[in-house]
Amino acid sequence: MKIAVAKGDGIGPEIMQAVLDIFTANKVPIEYEYVDMGKWVFDKGYSNGMTPEAQQTIEDLGILFKGPMETPKGKGVKSVNVTARKTWNTYANKRVFQTLHGVDTVFSKAGIPIDLTIVRENIEDTYGGIEHMLTHDVALSRRFITRPGSLQVIKYAFEMASKNGSKRITCGHKANIMKITDGLFLEVFYEVAKEYPHLKADDVIVDDLCMKLVSRPQEFDVVVLTNLQGDIVSDLCAGLVGGLGFAPSANIGDHICIFEAVHGTAPDIAGKNIANPTALLLSGIAMLRHLGMMENAATIENALLYTLESGVHTGDFGDKSIPSVNTTVFANAIISNLGKTPTHGARPMLPNQPATQTVFKLEENPMIMSKEPEDELIVGVDMFIESSEQPMVIAEKCLLHVGDVFKLVTISNRGTQVWPKGSVFTNMVNQYSARFESVGGAAVTQTDILELYRALMADFKICSTELLNKWGDKNAYSLAQGQ
Amino acid sequence: MKIAVAKGDGIGPEIMQAVLDIFTANKVPIEYEYVDMGKWVFDKGYSNGMTPEAQQTIEDLGILFKGPMETPKGKGVKSVNVTARKTWNTYANKRVFQTLHGVDTVFSKAGIPIDLTIVRENIEDTYGGIEHMLTHDVALSRRFITRPGSLQVIKYAFEMASKNGSKRITCGHKANIMKITDGLFLEVFYEVAKEYPHLKADDVIVDDLCMKLVSRPQEFDVVVLTNLQGDIVSDLCAGLVGGLGFAPSANIGDHICIFEAVHGTAPDIAGKNIANPTALLLSGIAMLRHLGMMENAATIENALLYTLESGVHTGDFGDKSIPSVNTTVFANAIISNLGKTPTHGARPMLPNQPATQTVFKLEENPMIMSKEPEDELIVGVDMFIESSEQPMVIAEKCLLHVGDVFKLVTISNRGTQVWPKGSVFTNMVNQYSARFESVGGAAVTQTDILELYRALMADFKICSTELLNKWGDKNAYSLAQGQ
Repeated sequence: MKIAVAKGDGIGPEIMQAVLDIFTANKVPIEYEYVDMGKWVFDKGYSNGMTPEAQQTIEDLGILFKGPMETPKGKGVKSVNVTARKTWNTYANKRVFQTLHGVDTVFSKAGIPIDLTIVRENIEDTYGGIEHMLTHDVALSRRFITRPGSLQVIKYAFEMASKNGSKRITCGHKANIMKITDGLFLEVFYEVAKEYPHLKADDVIVDDLCMKLVSRPQEFDVVVLTNLQGDIVSDLCAGLVGGLGFAPSANIGDHICIFEAVHGTAPDIAGKNIANPTALLLSGIAMLRHLGMMENAATIENALLYTLESGVHTGDFGDKSIPSVNTTVFANAIISNLGKTPTHGARPMLPNQPATQTVFKLEENPMIMSKEPEDELIVGVDMFIESSEQPMVIAEKCLLHVGDVFKLVTISNRGTQVWPKGSVFTNMVNQYSARFESVGGAAVTQTDILELYRALMADFKICSTELLNKWGDKNAYSLAQGQ
Repeated sequence: MKIAVAKGDGIGPEIMQAVLDIFTANKVPIEYEYVDMGKWVFDKGYSNGMTPEAQQTIEDLGILFKGPMETPKGKGVKSVNVTARKTWNTYANKRVFQTLHGVDTVFSKAGIPIDLTIVRENIEDTYGGIEHMLTHDVALSRRFITRPGSLQVIKYAFEMASKNGSKRITCGHKANIMKITDGLFLEVFYEVAKEYPHLKADDVIVDDLCMKLVSRPQEFDVVVLTNLQGDIVSDLCAGLVGGLGFAPSANIGDHICIFEAVHGTAPDIAGKNIANPTALLLSGIAMLRHLGMMENAATIENALLYTLESGVHTGDFGDKSIPSVNTTVFANAIISNLGKTPTHGARPMLPNQPATQTVFKLEENPMIMSKEPEDELIVGVDMFIESSEQPMVIAEKCLLHVGDVFKLVTISNRGTQVWPKGSVFTNMVNQYSARFESVGGAAVTQTDILELYRALMADFKICSTELLNKWGDKNAYSLAQGQ
C-alpha cells in the first residue's frame, strides 16, 4: 500500500514527521511517496499550488495525506486546499468531533460529552466561486446546489452513519429561506432516508442547529449540510472540543480521498518543534480506518487518548501546572503508550477490513445526472437590468418593448417587488429584475427570448438573464418578495 | 407618542399583554394602536400576512412592536416577518446578548460572561429569495451583496458601537471564498472604519468566529455580518445566553423600525398563560431606548434583572428547586420590583433623550447608489448552457460559433475549469459555463452579445447569461477554479 504525502507549509513538515514516526513505530503497512504542494510550489510559478508530477502521483495512488498549506494572498490564485478538494471531486468532508480527556473546554468543564460527526458537501454552494459585479454597486455570487451532487454526499453520510451504528442523522439547512436550493438538498435527504429505515432521519434549520449545538450538543449524532453552512457548523463543533488542533478532517470522493489537518500553518512557530500534531494524527487515524487498517487505527488512537489523559501536552493546551513538552517528546510519549488503553473512550479493537477505496483510471469526466423530466417548457425570462430610475419608469419602458409573446409580470429590486405594487419604503439599488412570462403560459423558444433581449437592449443594459422553466405543472423559479 | 402593536400568533397575545402591563405600571408614555398581522390574516386571504390598514398604520407611525408570528406552510406565501423587514427596508438587525443571572447556561456555569451585540444585514444575500432551476438537476440561488446596502448596515453598526462606548467592532465574513461579494462587504467595513478611528476595527472569517464564540465569546464586543452568516451567528449567540427566549431583536431602518421577539409562536402552550415574556420584554426595552425613554428602559430592565436574580422563573428555565410561576405572576413580580437594583449588571439611569427616529413621508422609492466608475466596459459574457456532453464536445461547438469578436477562454462545471485543461476526476452536472471574452480585451456591445447568443442557440439551451464587465483595469468577475 502506497499513499501520497504532502508535508505542507509552516509547521506542516514537523507535525507530519511526528505522525509518520508514530505510524512507523506501530508498523503501519504503508509506504509514502512525497509530493510537492503548497506555498513554495505557488512561489515556483505553479498557479494551482501543485506540480504536474504531484498531481499525477496523487491520481495514481488515490490517497493524499497532507499537512496544512498556505495559499499566497493577493496574487489572485485560488486556495490549494479548495482546488484539491474540487478537482478530485472529494464530495464529502467528514469531520469527527469527540471529547478528549486532557483537553479542557467550556463543555468538558460543564460535563457535557461531545461525540458528533459533521458531513459537509464539499464541491457546490458559493464555493463554486462564480462571482460577477452586475453594476458597480451590485455583486453577485451564484449559489448552486445540484441533485446529483447532493445525492453523492447524502448517500455517503447515510452509508457511513449506518456502518458506524449511528442512531440519528440530521440534515441542517435553510430551506425556509432558500426554498429551491436548500429545498432540493432537503428533498434528496428524505429520498435517501427511505433506504435507511433503521436510522432516525430528521432535519433542523441551521441557525436553530447552532443554538442547540452550544447548549445541548449531545442531542446530535451525524449532521449533513451544504458547503458553507457545513463549514461554519464544523468549526463551531471544533470549538466544542478544543479547536482545530483537535479536529480531524477527511475529504471523501469516489476515486481520490484527502486526509488533512485543517488548522493553519502557524508560520510564527514553524521550525521550533513545538507544534501540536494531534489534529493531523487524528486525520491519519481516520485514513487508516478508511484503508481498513482497523487494528493500527485503534492502537494508535488509544495511545493518543492515554497520553492526553496522562496530562502530557504541547504548549497550546492542557494543564498549565504540568510543564508542556515539544512535538518530538509528545510523539515519543504516544509511541511509548502504544498498546495501552485509556480510561475514557477506549476504541475497540476491530479486525482489519479490506480498503473501502478502489483506485481506477477514468477515461472521461463522469457526468452525474438524474432522470430528466418528461415535459420541460421555457415559459419566460428574468432580465436583470441596470437602471437608477424609478420602478414606474422601468415598467413603462419594458411595456413598450414587451411585444405579443410575453407579458411583464413583476419588477423587483434586491428580491422585493416594486412593480406593479410595492412599498415606497423599499430602498433600491441600480439593478432591477424584470420578469417576463409567456402570454397564457404557452411555451416560448430561445428565439423569442432573443427578440425580447434585442428589444429591451434599446433602453437598458441587460447584466444578466435567467430562463424561467416549467416542468410538468411546476414552476422552476421563485416568486419575488411581495409578488 | 404612538406606536403600532401586533400581538402575534400562538403565545403572542399573552406575552404582549404581560409586557404592556409592565410598561403601563412604569407609566411608559406611549399609546398603542393594534394592527392586524400574522397567521389569521393570511387565513383571511391577505397573501403578505397583513391588512392594508395595518400597513398604513405602521407606515404612519414608524414603529412596530410585534409578537411572534406564524407563516402558513405549503401555501407558497413568504414569511410575514421577512416581508415586513424587507418591505420597510429595516436594513440592520441588532441583537444584544447578555448574561442574565438566574438563567443557567453552559457558559454561566463556566463563569464566562457574555456581552455581545450582533448586527446583521437584513435585506440582501440569499434572503432576496431569487432562485431558479437552470436544469432539472441544477438549482441556483442568486446571492447579491451591494455597496450601498452594505454601507447602510455597517454605518449603523459603527454609529451604534461608538454611541454605546464599545471598544471593538469586528466584521465577520467569508471573503476568502466569496472574494467579490463578501470582499465588497469587507471593503466597505474598512472604508467606514476610517471615520471611527477611536474604535478598534478588525475582521474574522465566519467559521473561525463561530469556533471562537464557543470557546472565548468574551473577546468580542460588536460583530457585523451579512444576512445569512449573521442569522446563524445570532442564533449561536442566543444559545450562549439561554436561547431565543432571552434574546431581543430590533430591526432598524431609516423610516420604520420593528422590535420583536424572534422565538416561535409555541402553539402547544398558547392560551395557557405559562409562556416566558422575557425576549419580548427585552425587545420592548430596546424600543424604549430607541425612543429616547432611557429612564423607563433602565427601570424596567433593572426590575427584570432583579426578578431573574431572585429566582422567579417561568417553566422553561431557572432553578428547578424553586416552583415556576405563570406569565401573569412573572410579569407582576417584575412590576413589584420596579425601582429595585439588581446585584449583577445594573443598568445606569441615563437621562431621557430625543427619539432617534424621524418618521416622514416618502414621495418615491429611495435609490441608494454610490459614485459610478469613470470607465466601464463590457468585455465578454458567461453563457450558462445545458448539456450532458463531455467538455471537449462543448468546446468544439462553442468554437464553431465564436466568430471574430470573441474568443472562448474557459469552460467550467460547478465552478471548476474542465476546458482547456482540467482533471478527468472532476464530476460534472448537466450545466456548463462557457466564458467568452473579447479578442484583445476590446469593448464589445450588447449587440455583439446578442449575436453570440443567436449563434450558440443553434446548439445549446442557454439557461442564463452574465455580462463580464471591466472598470478601469479591473475585471469585475471571478476566475474559474483551476483557470
